[in-house]
This record gives sequence, structure tokens and C-alpha cells, in this order.
Amino acid sequence: MKSEQLVIGIDIGGTNLKCVLMTAKGKILNLRRMPTEAEKGRLKILSNIKEIVWDIIRENKLKKKDIKGIGLGTPGYILHGKIFGSPNTPGWNNTPIYAWMKKEFNLPFFAANDVTLAALAEHTFGSARGVQNMVCYAVGTGIGGGIVLNGELFEGTQGMAGEFGHVVVEPNGRLCGCGARGCLEAYASANGIVSMARNLLRTKRYQTSDLLKKTRGAHAALTPKLIYDRAKAGDKLCLEINNTVCKYLAIAIGGTINIFNPDMVILGGGVMSAGSIIMEGVRKFLPEYTLAQPLKKCRLAYAKLSENAGVIGSGALALRKTGLL
Amino acid sequence: MKSEQLVIGIDIGGTNLKCVLMTAKGKILNLRRMPTEAEKGRLKILSNIKEIVWDIIRENKLKKKDIKGIGLGTPGYILHGKIFGSPNTPGWNNTPIYAWMKKEFNLPFFAANDVTLAALAEHTFGSARGVQNMVCYAVGTGIGGGIVLNGELFEGTQGMAGEFGHVVVEPNGRLCGCGARGCLEAYASANGIVSMARNLLRTKRYQTSDLLKKTRGAHAALTPKLIYDRAKAGDKLCLEINNTVCKYLAIAIGGTINIFNPDMVILGGGVMSAGSIIMEGVRKFLPEYTLAQPLKKCRLAYAKLSENAGVIGSGALALRKTGLL
Repeated sequence: MKSEQLVIGIDIGGTNLKCVLMTAKGKILNLRRMPTEAEKGRLKILSNIKEIVWDIIRENKLKKKDIKGIGLGTPGYILHGKIFGSPNTPGWNNTPIYAWMKKEFNLPFFAANDVTLAALAEHTFGSARGVQNMVCYAVGTGIGGGIVLNGELFEGTQGMAGEFGHVVVEPNGRLCGCGARGCLEAYASANGIVSMARNLLRTKRYQTSDLLKKTRGAHAALTPKLIYDRAKAGDKLCLEINNTVCKYLAIAIGGTINIFNPDMVILGGGVMSAGSIIMEGVRKFLPEYTLAQPLKKCRLAYAKLSENAGVIGSGALALRKTGLL
Repeated sequence: MKSEQLVIGIDIGGTNLKCVLMTAKGKILNLRRMPTEAEKGRLKILSNIKEIVWDIIRENKLKKKDIKGIGLGTPGYILHGKIFGSPNTPGWNNTPIYAWMKKEFNLPFFAANDVTLAALAEHTFGSARGVQNMVCYAVGTGIGGGIVLNGELFEGTQGMAGEFGHVVVEPNGRLCGCGARGCLEAYASANGIVSMARNLLRTKRYQTSDLLKKTRGAHAALTPKLIYDRAKAGDKLCLEINNTVCKYLAIAIGGTINIFNPDMVILGGGVMSAGSIIMEGVRKFLPEYTLAQPLKKCRLAYAKLSENAGVIGSGALALRKTGLL
């Protein structure tokens, strides 16, 4: 293993901390995970990072000098070597991650937004391999995105590019978690989908919905998975929700295609596990919201790397920035 | 003049053909214009290009070898050396412009969309000089755009990037010239503004509008300039139109800021000559449609180079592509 060029990728999730040991060709030699323990604050997250990285080095009988670089994906964004805008990881904001990593490992280190890195992973090892221009929508609890242009990650001036979830798709529309109205995230994210279902179940029209029986009337038991299972079974309320989800996804994605004229748009994230019912719905609506020529050129595809896209992207970042790839 | 590094820029407008002789520092030594005569077809346009370029070479007592490169801006987009998607210049589509220019001048030649080049001009010599990431909205008869990322023109996979005018800002909204509904262009372009005014004048509410008196009842006489003059004078109908224009511009621009996290958004084009009544309206609406952090970072500014931005951008393209700048 000595002659191999190796990098480490780290992904800080809300629940799990992941760490990957990767070759320059993207072969995963080892993938470990442990609880992030974000609720215990910054020092605990940092000591967990330290632990998981040293564990992977030791377990693979490596020396520090065998590692050519470390990449890290985090919620929020990186500015001047610090982390900002990470609402769900208390105390994580303002962490001087570059300085800490230098002190701790003194290896070439690179950090970026986790969703952005998932896009880079898809571009480097997933569905959008080698494509010139692509954007990636991560449709999960919220909606994030990543952008690869001319083969390179595009991060924007402060590392915050790709906030597709907060593009307004319905003026004066549903209230979004960000405080604005009509954001894509208020319709097509897991939270948005469940919240729309709750609202519809309160209307007279849907008092007899199958969905109420399945949850035994408990709105708290609603999940996107349940809603999409019922949609596939033909439940009218759930089909109406899917129609709304697909329409607003198509408005946002269509806008993205008009703006970037990309080769590819990738859809990933937990909500997309519903599969073709969303994908085909989006495809159906797209021509209404997209110029014909760039639409014709653009392929729409599923993300391939699923839950490990973030940590693989962190490895890919290290590979690219150190010139190994 | 012999020792100077010179380039030529050409801009093919619907009405005028412009040609500029420019130094590497962007100094304009000569700017000529003549009618494009687009209605006479491709061969006439080409022979006019030939004439204007040779005129500028002769008049400045240059030899062909003094010219380091030629840039050209055209409606539509360039793919495989040919022009496509240029609806208002009959016969111009499919013109093998690269092959023709090589045969005619045999000088390094580069072409791109005219609005995209106006953005490049603003980045190279105008309001966004030296900025890392910027997007430019050209709000004229229609609405186009240009994108400069990491200091370089971003053109998309087929050279069609930056179609901000056809981003949908109102689902099921006003019909746009492109056939879709609710495009930004259907609200905030010169055509959109005039069309909205016509519709409002047909409603009972505005039978006594000042605007009707000014046009002596002839809807055909409506122009954005007239509408904005009346808006500034306090006419309610015209203020309502401006409110709509600013709101939809803010939705589109806010989306752009969320997507690109840019340093700057530039607004240019004929409609923007109305000035602060639009600019301040957009500023007022932007926080409703944009994440706070990227909005704070982004400057909103007028384009500086006005009607010559396109031809200056063509020169800038030649300067950049030949490595002079």
C-alpha cells in the first residue's frame, strides 16, 4: 500500500460522522462511521473527528505521511477558514476548522459544504462522471444543491453557491423555514411534503383519505415514504401532493437549465428514493418551464452514490486539490 | 501605433452593425457603425462585416498582421462554429461564421452571444471590473443575461447560458413570447411592460389614467419610457406596473443570488434607463426572495457601458482569448 496515493475524506452529518480512506482512483479502502454527537458541542465534534481519522490511519497500518490530503464536508459554508451558517449543529459555527486541522494533522486540508461535495462526488465517481457542466439537487429534509462547471466545483464567492432550495417558485406561496414565502424547499423537501399533507388532510375534501387510516389519524406519523407509498397505490391526496412536488421541482430545475445550459441535472436525496413517480413527473412538467434547446441538451438523472455521496465527495475534493485527480 | 497590441470587436445588432478597434488596455481607438441590413439576409450581413472591418483597418493605416484577433457578438448562440437560435435575423441561423471569418481574414477569431459579451465588457471595463463572480441582466426589448464566474465568461455547454428572461417567476402567469407562461421577460422586459399597461388600461379601474391622455387613447403609442415618465409623475397605473416589474425582477435576481452567491449583480438594458425607480424597487423586494447572507455580500449596480457594451465585450473576448488581457 505504500506506493499508493491515498487521501482521507470526512463528512459531518447531523447524525453520523463518516470517514473514508480512498485511493486516487476513488477506490474506497475503508469507510468508518460514528455518531457526530453534534448536540454535545464543538469540542466533542472535533475530538470525534480526531478519533475517527487516527483510527482509520492506525487500522490500515498507515503513517501520516502516506496521506496526501484530507477533505471535509460540513453543513453550512466555509469562509476565511471558519465554518458558518450551520443551523443544526450547535456551536459548530465559527469553528476555525482550517487552523484546528493544521494543528492536529498538519496535512493538506480542504473543506466545503457537504451538499456541494455530494455533487462533486457524482461528477467524479457517480452519474455525472466527466460531464462538463452539471448541477445537483439534493432533495432531503431540506433542499440543497451543488454545481460543477467546466469540470470544477463552483462554490460562489463565500462558498454558499447552489442554494436551490431557497429559490422562490411561487410568489406569496407557502412559508419556508428560512422565513421567506414560496421557496422550493417549502414544497418539495421532506418537510414541505409532510406539511402539505397535513394541510390537505385538514380540508373537507380529504376527510376520507387512505392516508388518515394508515397513520390512524395521527398527523405526526406522516412521512414522505408513507405519502409516496400511498401515491403509488393511487391515493388522490398523495397524487395531488406529488403533482405539486413535481411541478415546483420542474420550475426550479427548468430555471436552472435556462441559466446554466448544463449537460446534466442530477436529483438525489432521501425524497428521491420515491423514484420514477417523481422523476417522470418532473420530466412531464419540464417543457412548460424550460427553453426547448437547452432542455433537449440536458440529461436528467438520479444521483448514484446515495448516502455516502458526501464523504466520497470529501475524498474527491482532497484528490482534486492535491492534484492527484 | 505599430508596437501596440490591437484587436477588433464586432457586434451584430438587429439594427446596427458596430466595429471597434481596441488596445490591450481597452482604449477604443475607433468605433464605427453601419446598418446591419439583417433583413437582406446572410450574405448581406457578411459583406457588411467584411466592409466595416476592412474600413477600420484601412482608416487606421494598419496591416492585417497588426490585428491580434477578432471578437464577434451575435444574437443567438454559437455551436460547432455556426450560429443558431437567432430569431430576429432571418437567414443568420446556420451561418458557418468561424469558417467564413477564417477564409476572409485568417486571424484568431472568437464569437459568443452578444448579451453574454456585454456582461464580459462590464466585467473587463465597466461596473464589475475585476470582480470574481457576477451576473448581468440585460433588461431591454427582451431579457437576456451574462455570467462571469471566477473571472471567466461562463457560456454553458452550448453557449446558451444566462437566459434569465425565461426563468419562470409566476407559475401559470403571463404568456411569454417563447410560448411558456410566467417568464420574467413577460413582466419586466420592454414588451412585457407595454403589454401589461395595455391590459390594465382595458380595466375599468384605469379608464381615467393619465397614460391614456398622454397617448391620446392610442395603445400603440405606449412605450416603457412614457410609462416610466408617468410613474415618476405619480400615475397610479404606472406605479402599479413598476411594482410588478420590480417584484418579478427581485424574484429572479434573488434566485440568482441564492444560486451563484456572486459578488455583484449588474442591471443594464434600455428599460433600466428609468433608473432608481426600478433599482430601488428591486432593492426593496430583494430581502423577501433572497437568503440574508449571500444578499448581504452581493452588490447590485447599474451597467456602465450602455449601448456599446456588446461591441466592447467583443473586443474584450478577443483580448482575453488571445492572452493579451
